[in-house]
Amino acid sequence: MPDLELHPLNATLIPLLGEWQGSGEGAYPTIDSFSYGEILVFGHVGKPFVAMNQRTRERESGLPLHAEAGYFRPQGDGTIELVLSQPSGIVEILTGTITETEAGVEVDVSSVGVHTAPSAKLVRETRRRYVVKGGTLTCDFWMAAMGEPLTHHLTSSLIRQG
Amino acid sequence: MPDLELHPLNATLIPLLGEWQGSGEGAYPTIDSFSYGEILVFGHVGKPFVAMNQRTRERESGLPLHAEAGYFRPQGDGTIELVLSQPSGIVEILTGTITETEAGVEVDVSSVGVHTAPSAKLVRETRRRYVVKGGTLTCDFWMAAMGEPLTHHLTSSLIRQG
Repeated sequence: MPDLELHPLNATLIPLLGEWQGSGEGAYPTIDSFSYGEILVFGHVGKPFVAMNQRTRERESGLPLHAEAGYFRPQGDGTIELVLSQPSGIVEILTGTITETEAGVEVDVSSVGVHTAPSAKLVRETRRRYVVKGGTLTCDFWMAAMGEPLTHHLTSSLIRQG
Repeated sequence: MPDLELHPLNATLIPLLGEWQGSGEGAYPTIDSFSYGEILVFGHVGKPFVAMNQRTRERESGLPLHAEAGYFRPQGDGTIELVLSQPSGIVEILTGTITETEAGVEVDVSSVGVHTAPSAKLVRETRRRYVVKGGTLTCDFWMAAMGEPLTHHLTSSLIRQG
């Protein structure tokens, strides 16, 4: 396996790369609020995308809650596409912007398509925001589901590992 | 982290679980044929799905070619859903069947939805088949793209690792 240099299109995403761990809080009009532990990994293989793999766990039991896996596709003009899938039977296509900041980067994307497997619960719309400030990554997630409009659902604060 | 017992809905997928490595051949009416190395990993976390993560490489250089990540969702009645995303900007939702055989299992799924990010190449339809016979996994992939009808594109033969 040769050394894999970062693809130039990924340059603005450098602050995201690596493994992040921390905790989050979830709320939605239709459910009780809850907290969770989260592991989020961003990696590259020298091609013009960044792979994302996320898992969350119950705080007390350590049992798995959510997971998702996908790919960030920076377009080189400050815009970005994100495609991902979830074990709940949902796939998403999102587009948005990359904003470089003094302390890191912000990626803010909104769904242009949310599609569900026949047995999955319907989600109509999502928005995802990833903000790196130094060694901290803050993730926020909004969704329109269960008859609700686009509503903030999750926020987590993660610390860079290693 | 507690021990994670296999979810009963995953029982028929046991032959798939683990890591597989091997090689494959690609062909399509619009391109030159090619060969590749492949790593395919199926894992579970005690919930009613199996996570799939795949990467392929050029045989000579070892450079990354394709990747995909997704989730198999067995429905308990011999049918299964598969959701996945690819760094090429494609997400797929597929449905089909799980067939238990004397030597393993066959999973055969066809797309009910293929969706592409704005900058991605269009793929209209896919079919994926995974056949485990003892310690060998054969993967086949068909797609309708580049104006072609659903056409066989990839076949690989992988050996169980470890």
